[in-house]
Amino acid sequence: MLNNYIRPEDGLDRESRKAETKRLQVLLTAQQPALREAKLPVVVLVEGWAAAGKGGLINKLISDIDPRFSSVFSLDADRRDADRYPFLHPFFSALPENGKLLFMDGGWMEAAVRDRLCGGLSKEDYRQRIYSVNRFERQLRDNGYLVLKLFVHISEKEQARRQKRLLADRDTAWRVSDYDRRQNGDYSRWLRTYEEFMTATGDVFPWHVLDGSGKKKLNHDAFRLLTDLISAGLAAGRFCGEPFEAAFPMAPAPRLSEVDLSPRLEEAEYRRELDELQERLARLHNTVYRKRIPVIVCFEGWDAAGKGGSIRRLAYPLDPRGFETWPISSPEPHELARHYLWRFWTRLPRSGHVAIFDRTWYGRVMVERIEGFCSRADWQRAYNEINEFEADLYDWGAVILKFWLHIDPETQLQRFTERQNTPEKQWKITDEDWRNREKWPLYEEAVNDMLEKTSTEFAPWHVVESDDKLYARIKVMRIVADAMEKAVKERD
Amino acid sequence: MLNNYIRPEDGLDRESRKAETKRLQVLLTAQQPALREAKLPVVVLVEGWAAAGKGGLINKLISDIDPRFSSVFSLDADRRDADRYPFLHPFFSALPENGKLLFMDGGWMEAAVRDRLCGGLSKEDYRQRIYSVNRFERQLRDNGYLVLKLFVHISEKEQARRQKRLLADRDTAWRVSDYDRRQNGDYSRWLRTYEEFMTATGDVFPWHVLDGSGKKKLNHDAFRLLTDLISAGLAAGRFCGEPFEAAFPMAPAPRLSEVDLSPRLEEAEYRRELDELQERLARLHNTVYRKRIPVIVCFEGWDAAGKGGSIRRLAYPLDPRGFETWPISSPEPHELARHYLWRFWTRLPRSGHVAIFDRTWYGRVMVERIEGFCSRADWQRAYNEINEFEADLYDWGAVILKFWLHIDPETQLQRFTERQNTPEKQWKITDEDWRNREKWPLYEEAVNDMLEKTSTEFAPWHVVESDDKLYARIKVMRIVADAMEKAVKERD
Repeated sequence: MLNNYIRPEDGLDRESRKAETKRLQVLLTAQQPALREAKLPVVVLVEGWAAAGKGGLINKLISDIDPRFSSVFSLDADRRDADRYPFLHPFFSALPENGKLLFMDGGWMEAAVRDRLCGGLSKEDYRQRIYSVNRFERQLRDNGYLVLKLFVHISEKEQARRQKRLLADRDTAWRVSDYDRRQNGDYSRWLRTYEEFMTATGDVFPWHVLDGSGKKKLNHDAFRLLTDLISAGLAAGRFCGEPFEAAFPMAPAPRLSEVDLSPRLEEAEYRRELDELQERLARLHNTVYRKRIPVIVCFEGWDAAGKGGSIRRLAYPLDPRGFETWPISSPEPHELARHYLWRFWTRLPRSGHVAIFDRTWYGRVMVERIEGFCSRADWQRAYNEINEFEADLYDWGAVILKFWLHIDPETQLQRFTERQNTPEKQWKITDEDWRNREKWPLYEEAVNDMLEKTSTEFAPWHVVESDDKLYARIKVMRIVADAMEKAVKERD
Repeated sequence: MLNNYIRPEDGLDRESRKAETKRLQVLLTAQQPALREAKLPVVVLVEGWAAAGKGGLINKLISDIDPRFSSVFSLDADRRDADRYPFLHPFFSALPENGKLLFMDGGWMEAAVRDRLCGGLSKEDYRQRIYSVNRFERQLRDNGYLVLKLFVHISEKEQARRQKRLLADRDTAWRVSDYDRRQNGDYSRWLRTYEEFMTATGDVFPWHVLDGSGKKKLNHDAFRLLTDLISAGLAAGRFCGEPFEAAFPMAPAPRLSEVDLSPRLEEAEYRRELDELQERLARLHNTVYRKRIPVIVCFEGWDAAGKGGSIRRLAYPLDPRGFETWPISSPEPHELARHYLWRFWTRLPRSGHVAIFDRTWYGRVMVERIEGFCSRADWQRAYNEINEFEADLYDWGAVILKFWLHIDPETQLQRFTERQNTPEKQWKITDEDWRNREKWPLYEEAVNDMLEKTSTEFAPWHVVESDDKLYARIKVMRIVADAMEKAVKERD
């Protein structure tokens, strides 16, 4: 089966191959400026058997590329702590900036196969990972990434021979891990699993199997495939993906105009509930920490709806060793130069921690949509990409809470005016807030679309009536506490 | 002795203290916009006994601060992997941006004391850390950071009582670590060590000992100290520190005009040496990896001196799992908003890895000096700060190699012209390169100053004659290989 993916013989003799390799290497160097110009990011995933020569191949491929524009990911070095994060976390975090190349010495294939064969990963969780990988690859494609997937193949006998040689020298012996030895000891099981993985993940980007038994041919074939990929990528227009189509079970979500904003809470009642909820949250945070359940709380809402105040009340009872707050504003250059979800993947909490996002990835379908910071195709596709992102978080075991803090325009005006007239609050109000206010109808439409298209069963939106701040804070805290309690019970 | 640092009694009764705490809390909130306006970063280090209530105090302090402008560091959570990095690494990495506050739940005191009393840290290494801490604090002060150092104090009996209570509940029992129990079991030894640490590190920022037996007074005192610190910081002009004075044993360094640029290497000789050195480097890299020796290679030099080419040849034989290349260009906003060494501290290699910097922290005393991106006091002070930074790397066990790739102006002109006339090289040459070329004399002066003031015995500069690229590459590789070999021998 692996033969389905293998490169055919090219019939080149030694000399012609050498010359051809040289030519391709020069071509690759020449492609770099065009790649940067076109802002195309490239990911070269090098998978394959232990001791197949993945590292050497990568070194050859990058040897003439300006180091400012390439980086190397190593599964063994860069996936520490992986058990505290979702499966895709190390791969998403490693994504290169536009115009740059990332070479991966092992990646999502090896990580999944290893956990399946040696890490006790269940069949169902393994299948889940395959879905995740396919969604990930599609997101990469849709967001303009060129991806080359190589598998370096050697025979059982050749692998045994190489491992023996490495083990003979003290300085190279550490390269042969227990895992590598197990692999050689049960070669056919790994072979079958690799083959199945390729079949299950070949739809978005195809797999290429390269013969690792001879370095020259291996290098030549890899240069050929990589330069072909880049040429094609430069020639092609950008692929934009498909707009949203519900792919997950959806939860009902209201339209903003239907929301009754009258709920109020008396000060005395507020105090009582606040104390009670904070005590409950403190207790639950301890349990969640102990059970390593990750909790992700997302705040969106109109300007002056009270996000800051709600966040402070919610965070107060939490142990500072176990939570972080992420204020999200416009992306910095190195963030803008990557998949828009990159800056959120890299801010995920470790399992057991609580991450509070003050504004979130939903900027893609609100401010970026309205201000034209991304194309129509980009934001239309984003609903689905965001659902997929949250599905990965959910599969990892995370509790996901999404709040839209809703007020009416009159309440906003009143709060804006108050801010303007209170010296110590003036910094909170900017010209931009007034400009955004003028776009209320556009935002309302965007919010309604967002509520409709991203309220999944596993991560539904909670619209919080916030004309009364006291009511809103208590509602938020109660929803968080209830969700944490439910998650704890489910773990037991 | 600890009494030397303790806050005196204030004689406030319960009600007045409550009112006063509220007033200070409001004041702290009001100080925030001014702090941002003045771009002053604040670090609040909360040290103290296990179970003294550090976490609770921090939560109280941050409760009214906008979460966009504050963050919490936790020694236990944020110092993972610490054994693979220099002692200061987690603290430097956690530094807040200008205008923001960082609260530290344990920091450099606890880390040092813990390693000394339980981690087998030798007396001499411990003393080294104290130096390091004092230099660190001075750098923070000189670079505009406001630092408040608190120690929360409770008695042996009180600590025992609190630990017992925590251990009684399954959800809080995990908070009492083995270390915490050992501390209570040998309270007087810890007490003595804490006291000594305070005496040894009280010069730059004073220590304040707070009584942790009662929450209300603890909170009140901390609010008082923090608001006082900020008021004083806002009132004071920025402290600029002292200009350079050699504080480390220096190595001789040439002036650029004295460098003989005639050395050349024949192509055949180059090939032979290249092969030999690459083989040697591959072997050494394996050993260095196994022995966990960190290697830091810094490239500076004139535009078109051949940095990229040298880096590629040097990197080619290295195992991609064990090295990274860091191209350094102008800082991004989040980097610019911190101590200028922050972006290098956060890019250090793990022990056993090789980090290659394509341009470095020396930008501070070259481009930033010449273009006026920092003040005269800033760059004059930087020589010493950089030496201290490299001393920390050296104490950690790092091999530090610094190369200045030197060419004469005619060679540069020739290479610029060639780049301009070769289509696939045009991207390498920009208007800025031509502008920098006009500033040759200014740069030459800055480089001479740099060579003179930062060529320490533990991190000397190597000026590499680069009019002939082949000669330069071989010289660089040989120096790196020799240094790695020497370090390996010293470890044995």
